[in-house]
Amino acid sequence: MAVKRIGVIGSGQLGRMMALAATHLDTEFVFFDEASESPCSNLGKSIQPSSDNALKAFIESVDVVTYESENTDATLVDDINQQVPVYPSSISLLKSQHRLTEKSFFQSIGIQTADFRKVESLADLTSAVEELGLPIILKTTREGYDGKGQAMIKEASDVEAAWQTLQGTELIAEAFVHFSRELSVIAARNVKGDVEIYPLAENDHSAGILRVSRVPVKALSEQKLTQARQYITTLLNELNHVGVLTLELFDTDSGLIANEMAPRVHNSGHWSIEGAYCSQFENHIRAICDMPLGSTSARQEYAAMINIIGKHGNQESVLKQENSFYHAYGKSERLNRKIGHINIVASNEAEIERTIKQYSAFVSECGE
Amino acid sequence: MAVKRIGVIGSGQLGRMMALAATHLDTEFVFFDEASESPCSNLGKSIQPSSDNALKAFIESVDVVTYESENTDATLVDDINQQVPVYPSSISLLKSQHRLTEKSFFQSIGIQTADFRKVESLADLTSAVEELGLPIILKTTREGYDGKGQAMIKEASDVEAAWQTLQGTELIAEAFVHFSRELSVIAARNVKGDVEIYPLAENDHSAGILRVSRVPVKALSEQKLTQARQYITTLLNELNHVGVLTLELFDTDSGLIANEMAPRVHNSGHWSIEGAYCSQFENHIRAICDMPLGSTSARQEYAAMINIIGKHGNQESVLKQENSFYHAYGKSERLNRKIGHINIVASNEAEIERTIKQYSAFVSECGE
Repeated sequence: MAVKRIGVIGSGQLGRMMALAATHLDTEFVFFDEASESPCSNLGKSIQPSSDNALKAFIESVDVVTYESENTDATLVDDINQQVPVYPSSISLLKSQHRLTEKSFFQSIGIQTADFRKVESLADLTSAVEELGLPIILKTTREGYDGKGQAMIKEASDVEAAWQTLQGTELIAEAFVHFSRELSVIAARNVKGDVEIYPLAENDHSAGILRVSRVPVKALSEQKLTQARQYITTLLNELNHVGVLTLELFDTDSGLIANEMAPRVHNSGHWSIEGAYCSQFENHIRAICDMPLGSTSARQEYAAMINIIGKHGNQESVLKQENSFYHAYGKSERLNRKIGHINIVASNEAEIERTIKQYSAFVSECGE
Repeated sequence: MAVKRIGVIGSGQLGRMMALAATHLDTEFVFFDEASESPCSNLGKSIQPSSDNALKAFIESVDVVTYESENTDATLVDDINQQVPVYPSSISLLKSQHRLTEKSFFQSIGIQTADFRKVESLADLTSAVEELGLPIILKTTREGYDGKGQAMIKEASDVEAAWQTLQGTELIAEAFVHFSRELSVIAARNVKGDVEIYPLAENDHSAGILRVSRVPVKALSEQKLTQARQYITTLLNELNHVGVLTLELFDTDSGLIANEMAPRVHNSGHWSIEGAYCSQFENHIRAICDMPLGSTSARQEYAAMINIIGKHGNQESVLKQENSFYHAYGKSERLNRKIGHINIVASNEAEIERTIKQYSAFVSECGE
């Protein structure tokens, strides 16, 4: 079995979990990132992009390249792709990086989204408020995550303040979606075009940060499940996407509404490390290495993931519990920083909910 | 959570699987071994023991030390232990390294073994044949594994040849044990003295090399299960052992007979990576790091492990199968070399046996 040398742009917890999940397939990792000390420091070579020679060295040391973040420079991806394949391609990246492009693309391939308007001036924003109705959410079209770069406009009197806060960059105004819950669907597509879809997850956020994901989603109609699977399959194929892709969804009375996609493994899929036969991390590497995909089925009836945010809590209480798995990212404690997660598996709902409750300190105390 | 820096003497697949199993607990690995390229090359720092300074650098870079092989130099272990703790201690190591010492120790704590005699001369061997009866197995007291350093004496006329082959080093003559099958019991004991025992495995060998391990052991009497659990618990406590310990057993009409122990994680426990809630590798690291032990229970009713020996077979056939997990060790192909293994899980016996059969080429073709 020839060793496959994988380059990762970035060196955070996603790269770390890719390396931990795929080294047993005789892969070797090279991380291309500013940080010299990182969650990936001990899991492969690190090259800092200080010069053109660094990029050359990175390209020469790998067989295939992927990335951790949807904010990766698409020009860099295209440059590298001239010499070694980069998956997902810059097409997936560019569509994810720009909220207007992304939503227009969703609509063009039959994926429902919130109504939206491009906003380049205060006049545009005032028109948007008139056309979309209130409340609306004003967002930067680029970057922004975990609730940053956003302003909610509930009343006409909020318009001026929202404009003052966010003006100076291209903006999008989105109609507020009345949803009952947030879901995500994650799938992998390999070089050959095979697709495997994970069970959907239900995601609880607090202060804009994901706290808990649960699998399976309770009381999800067959129709909505089919809709989610169609959305992600269409996306993967239309993008000719290779690797893992995540689509965030709002569950509403009128079906599933797409919020945004991420051309990568996703926090709401971390449960799959112990919860699925083949984790999102291993399947991402299998996909980009032209291997057959592994099964995305859950190994037990119930799974959950709890983010460890800000500081490590009582780790011993987790280690002692048969159904729980503690994942630390090798990162120092810092307010609102994701520094690890706990996976839980169970064969009944009462057990999974009881265990989540037991770790409520990780959700409330550590996070704020 | 403070990072725990773990030193491993050796850098083979066992160290590799320890690092892959424990990095998520914020551990960092340093491997102390002659090899500069190894299965562990990408999973931590490597220090080659070329000089006293190398040993000093190794000791200074770690918080706790363990080892991969029962042939580790006990003097080195004691030297390191003056400065940082080494687990398991040299007591476990010394008892495992010498077949006479080991068997005497087993008997002294109530663990049944084959009858045996020390052999230092042809006259000793002739007496041993008279006292123990035929057949007997003549072995070197030190080293030797996978059937090396052994000679079977079936008839009186074999005595001379066996002596000629093995003389020149201290020997042990062991009465041949008529057993129906070979089993192993693996357990972990942490610094606090907590003990967790894995389900027993049944092991199939061919040409002296382990080919297949199955969990659970079929039709094992409650009495024998209790005996195995008592043996390993007594051993762990008597040795004040910290880490994982493996005991190989013969299943006979008169109960379980101890063959030998290994003060380490063991090939017959590799199934635990996906088969148990907490693998032998993670539990070994938890044990030596003074963490609570994880559950040794099986996650599904049936598990099996098939060694990949000599060359990689049809890897794709394994990757495609939901219930199968391919583990490559980052080693080049070579006759009779263990270069990987396949783990299988299933909820019924028919499925596990069907899958093992499907991979029979890995057992027969690759191995010889």
